[in-house]
This record gives sequence, structure tokens and C-alpha cells, in this order.
Amino acid sequence: MSRNIITYISSEKERLENELTAIFSKKNIPSNLRASMEYSLFAGGKRLRPILLFASYDTFAKPSNKVLKTAAALEMVHTYSLIHDDLPAMDNDDYRRGLLTNHRKFDEATAILAGDALLTFSFEHIVTDELLSADEKVYLLQALTKASGAEGMVAGQVLDTEGEQQELRLSDLEKIHKLKTGELISFAITAGAYLANVEEERIQHLNEFAYYLGLIFQVQDDILDVIGDPEKLGKPVGSDVDNNKSTYPNLLGMEDAIKQKETYEQLAMKALEKADAMESYLFDLLHYFSQRDH
Amino acid sequence: MSRNIITYISSEKERLENELTAIFSKKNIPSNLRASMEYSLFAGGKRLRPILLFASYDTFAKPSNKVLKTAAALEMVHTYSLIHDDLPAMDNDDYRRGLLTNHRKFDEATAILAGDALLTFSFEHIVTDELLSADEKVYLLQALTKASGAEGMVAGQVLDTEGEQQELRLSDLEKIHKLKTGELISFAITAGAYLANVEEERIQHLNEFAYYLGLIFQVQDDILDVIGDPEKLGKPVGSDVDNNKSTYPNLLGMEDAIKQKETYEQLAMKALEKADAMESYLFDLLHYFSQRDH
Repeated sequence: MSRNIITYISSEKERLENELTAIFSKKNIPSNLRASMEYSLFAGGKRLRPILLFASYDTFAKPSNKVLKTAAALEMVHTYSLIHDDLPAMDNDDYRRGLLTNHRKFDEATAILAGDALLTFSFEHIVTDELLSADEKVYLLQALTKASGAEGMVAGQVLDTEGEQQELRLSDLEKIHKLKTGELISFAITAGAYLANVEEERIQHLNEFAYYLGLIFQVQDDILDVIGDPEKLGKPVGSDVDNNKSTYPNLLGMEDAIKQKETYEQLAMKALEKADAMESYLFDLLHYFSQRDH
Repeated sequence: MSRNIITYISSEKERLENELTAIFSKKNIPSNLRASMEYSLFAGGKRLRPILLFASYDTFAKPSNKVLKTAAALEMVHTYSLIHDDLPAMDNDDYRRGLLTNHRKFDEATAILAGDALLTFSFEHIVTDELLSADEKVYLLQALTKASGAEGMVAGQVLDTEGEQQELRLSDLEKIHKLKTGELISFAITAGAYLANVEEERIQHLNEFAYYLGLIFQVQDDILDVIGDPEKLGKPVGSDVDNNKSTYPNLLGMEDAIKQKETYEQLAMKALEKADAMESYLFDLLHYFSQRDH
């Protein structure tokens, strides 16, 4: 792994977190609600989606603050989805990344409302961005609402829940991942390219790249749950097997799960080549996420 | 009450409901999620906010479909807020308008996700509206996200919950109503005027009118809970007194609650006069809502 990409990830993460720290400063939000929103925004995420957005933009244009608010908005949508997914009525999780989940730290009502507020605020953050034109705001909001709503991420959560008690085929699993996590990853990469004025045809290739990148991220997640190091992961392993969850190793066996990941990698590279972006942070991130140990 | 306004309300309600019926037809939404979203959208609401939006637009411009999608979006935001407010962790209501609440008809997870999806879809519906310019979309979305988020409706819900166990002053009650229901009512009236090309100064007067109209609506709600006819209301009366809720009659006594409503009416009329809109559906609606018996 090149040192370069580790440094890049860490600096972009800091950039995103500085923006997230600043966003509430001028807002008049009831204190408990604000505390709940901030708690989950700063509960130690990987910042995968914002980093991909930055990387995509930086591949095609000189680094600029033009993408900063969109990246923060994207992380807010992701955070809202985690808060609601953790609720007792959904996954009923007490911990996430070693910290109490939002409804356990605050209460259920506050967690529901904090999620609602983060979702709403994410759209507000884009539509009030002074560095974007009205046309750019419209493009981004069309893409982000579609990616996160009833035809995107929310649909994925529904299908995931409905699929829990069933034996899924690989194509079912791919569809759930595409909707539940893939749509926001695609948004990250295509929005970055769009803001960097990349032409539509290349954006389509990047969208395909994003699709495989999302799946690679998921296979690796599933693989680490079996053979990962609990110390590095910061969580126990083996829970997916115990819960009989539909994962790549449970579905295909470990050997074929790894082969499947390699297939996705080849397809991702092909798409990246068509987008003429082989020399890029996106290329480095593909390998970084595919090989990550946490 | 003029016959005219009754006919107007009924025709605009139908217009809104036709639009709501059509919106999902081209959408690829998991069937259970879609059923849950549609269930609450068609659970017999008054359609107050869309009707105010239509009335505001029609006061200043020739009737047009330009406002139709924004009106539907507004009703979706309102509906999402009802679904989430009814949840066990919040108001824990089993019935609304004589029908099972969403989480009782479906389940809690579905109700949370249906709310999330309606909120997201409301913004999508405006940003994909082909009858609006990019600048108009940006104006509307800035106003709607602010009205419905952590500084608006969600803040109102938080303050309402926090205020439940306390004795409130009139100014506290006004603040909660302003945030919880007033912001969306203001959006309805100002968005209608904006789309009808009304100048900013008059929109400000209409915003003031909307503020008092929202409070009038609430006082009358509280009054009807004491002296209303359960048959006409379609729900039992007296529950606010029993629950020791902060209402106008509980706070001021019935006589002064009615006086307070008259004060709001005078202030609303004054604002409407300044907006030069005394001959309008808005004027008629003010009196209709102030005198309503259900």
C-alpha cells in the first residue's frame, strides 16, 4: 500500500471533520437535539463516502472547497441512516464502533428526531452552499434524494430486513448492497466528478466503478468478520456466522468469496480504465479498501 | 361562512389528492414500503397546508399547475412528521383520525422508514419538478428544509416533548406552536406567494399573517377539545384536560382563550391588509379555520 494514500485519507478525514465541527455554529437548535446530532456525527466513522467524493473531485480538478459542503451533507445522510438502523425496532444495537448507539446514549425519541434532523439538514446544507450554482444544487439534490430515498438506501434497508430470514442468491445480495450502501457510494464518486466538470459519458463509467467498489467494500467487511483481528477491527468477529446472516462467505464459502472480490476488482479496474482515471486516488482507494484489515 | 370557500376547499383538496395518487406510479419502491407510505398519505387529512399554498398562489396569480408538486411535497413532509410523532417512543398513539396509526397498521420499522422515505421524497419531488426553474427550486428547498428541520418543525417536536411535564407561559406555548406547526403553514403561504411573483416586502406581511393563522388554528383545536361535538370531530373530546396538557383553555381559561383567538384574528387581518390581500381566499380561510367545528 502506498504511503501516499494513507496520508491522503487522513488529511481528507480531517478536512471533513473540520467542516462538520463548523456546521452547527450558526444554528439555533434545541440543546439536547444538537447534542444528539453531534454525538453520532463524531462517533468515529471511517468517512468513506466524503473521502471518495474528495478523491473523485481531486482526480479531475484542482482541490477546492467547492465539494466541502456536499461531502458534509453526504456524511449527514449516512449518519442519519445509522442512527435509525440501530433503533430497537430495526437492528436493536446497543453499540456502534465501541460507543453507545444514539438511542442508548440519549433516548429513542431523541434518536429518531436527530436522524430526521440530520437528513433534513443534509439537503439544506447543499441548497444553501454559496460556492454552488443553482443548476449544480439541483443536480446534486436530484442525485442525493434518489440515492437515499424509497428507490435507494431506504429500499435497501427494507429489502435487507425482509431478506434476513431467507436464503439469498448472490444476485439478491448484490441488489441489497447496491441499494443499501452502493447508492451513496455512487453519489460520492459521481458528484465529485460532476463538480469537477467531467463529461457525462465518463461519469457513467465512474458510476460503474463505484458499483463494484461498493461490493468490494462489503465482501471485505464480510471476510473480516470471519478472519479479521478483533483488536484491529475494534469489535468481536464471528457474529455474522452465528446469526446465520447472508454474507459472501456464508453464501459462497471463504475461498470463493475471495475469488468474487477479485472478480469485482477486475471489473472495477476496467470501468476506471474506461473513465481514463487509472492514475488517481480512486485507483489507490480501490486497493486500499480491498486489502484493509479494519 | 360563504359557500364559496367550502367549494374551494373541496376542489383544491381533490386536486391535491389526484396529484398524490399519481406520484408513486413511476417509482420503483418495495411494495410494503410503498403501501405504508400511501396508507398515511391517504389517511384522511384536512390538507390544510396544500390548500393554503393553493389559496396563496391563487390570490396573486391565475391558477396553475406550477404549485402542484410543491403542495404535494409539503403534504408529504407533514405526513412524515405525523408518522414519526405517533411512534411508541414519541406520542405512542394507536389511532389517528379514526384509523390505526402507521406503526400499528404495519410495524414500527416500516413506519420509521416510511417517514424517512416521505421526507426524502418531498425534497425530490420539488427538485425534479419540470415546471420550476433552478432558482425557484433552490428558493423553495431552502425555505422548506429550514421550516421542517432542527431549527423548525423538529425543534418544535423536541420542545413540545420537553414542555409536557412543565407549566408553560403563553409565550412558550406560542413558540412551540410556531415551530411545530407554524413553520410549515408559513412555508405554504409564502411559497405560494413567491411562485406567484409577489415582491419580498408583501411576502413578509403574508408571513406574519401565516404566523397568526397558525396560532388561530391551534387555539380553535384546543377549544374544540373542550366544547366540540365528538360526532363532528370524529374523536372523543376532553383528552387535553385529562392529560393536563398545555392548551389555551388550560392556560388561560375558556373565556380568555376565545379572547386570545380574537386578538390573533385582528393581528392576522392587519397583516393581510398590509399585504394588500383582503379580498382573497386567504381572508375567507382565516374565518373558516377560526370558526370551524371539526
